[in-house]
Amino acid sequence: MRRKEFAIGSEDEQEVTAFLEEMSYGFLGTARADGAPSITPLNYIYLNGNVYFHGSRVGDKMTLLGAEPRVTFCVAKEYAIIPSHFTDPLMACPATAFFKSVIIEGTAAVVEDLMEKGEALQALMTKLQPEGGHLPIAGDDPAYRGRLKGVAVVKIEPQQINAKFKFGQNADEPKREAIATGLLARGRELDAETVDLMRRYCPHHKEQAHPGD
Amino acid sequence: MRRKEFAIGSEDEQEVTAFLEEMSYGFLGTARADGAPSITPLNYIYLNGNVYFHGSRVGDKMTLLGAEPRVTFCVAKEYAIIPSHFTDPLMACPATAFFKSVIIEGTAAVVEDLMEKGEALQALMTKLQPEGGHLPIAGDDPAYRGRLKGVAVVKIEPQQINAKFKFGQNADEPKREAIATGLLARGRELDAETVDLMRRYCPHHKEQAHPGD
Repeated sequence: MRRKEFAIGSEDEQEVTAFLEEMSYGFLGTARADGAPSITPLNYIYLNGNVYFHGSRVGDKMTLLGAEPRVTFCVAKEYAIIPSHFTDPLMACPATAFFKSVIIEGTAAVVEDLMEKGEALQALMTKLQPEGGHLPIAGDDPAYRGRLKGVAVVKIEPQQINAKFKFGQNADEPKREAIATGLLARGRELDAETVDLMRRYCPHHKEQAHPGD
Repeated sequence: MRRKEFAIGSEDEQEVTAFLEEMSYGFLGTARADGAPSITPLNYIYLNGNVYFHGSRVGDKMTLLGAEPRVTFCVAKEYAIIPSHFTDPLMACPATAFFKSVIIEGTAAVVEDLMEKGEALQALMTKLQPEGGHLPIAGDDPAYRGRLKGVAVVKIEPQQINAKFKFGQNADEPKREAIATGLLARGRELDAETVDLMRRYCPHHKEQAHPGD
């Protein structure tokens, strides 16, 4: 990432983790045998510092991962399109988008241990189906043992995690206020939350919030 | 894509185009010099059969694209998490997600022509800021000429477009009905639309809709 003002520092690791735990799907980037890039959207779980996903034992994903274990995994959420007219009555150039994105670089490996497979898939269920309504998945439960053997679970161990939470950190205070006012007047689903995030990630507010830093 | 029942055929090209025109952002997959994959989320416009995005002339993206023009571009929207208990009172295995995804494989090239750059950026504005409120962007407008020279616009020409619209095509009729009933009872924001899409992409409904095929 070239622009440092959007980068989330290690003190915000908890917020990155919360974002990865909140989102339901991400994008797996792999390299084909001929070097061309490939992307697959998939549901995932972020558990114990690793990303897990599941799929067929015989699909394209598994073939790609077998040949090249280096992967990238990206999770992103767009909060608000910021129209140019919030800050400029004439030029289109200030138009932008506010978003969170996390890009993980790491290596992928197929999980063979049934207990770990069960733990990952149960964690995925807890995230995506929090109301329950099923037998808990466990590697030592005979009801699931055969199914767990039949499904592929892949673990991505991150080597690097880069987060970019872009909420107007590069705008000066009058522009930031104009954007916040515009968002609150527009009132789309995520607009009020976006204004909260602008305040949270504003460099000035940050300094005020941590006077001892 | 391994499972053919979710693939969208060429007769549905208009729906793929509509999806690409509706969505605001996608994920660019590139290959690093050492062959490792890289992903960047970005706003884009699908125009005249090509994908355009813009960025800084000196960022990471441009370095990557200069070294390896083969790219992949993925746009996806999750419509509904389908809980296992819609169709199975015990096992977690039927849990799934219904979604649309389009994966484009192509080559990326920096656009130098100012008129084409202006057209692409104006189309992006029309999509993301349909209310207007700015001077129209045009390559021959002196107000924009300098700005257009200063920004990088990249065009991806697709070699292949694969679409996967997964809305229960692989479920039998009783399961499909149970899922539709569950979604309508749950009533989340996209649930009713998801049921419409299930009906639309159901192989049986399709046959009925085109009896002459």
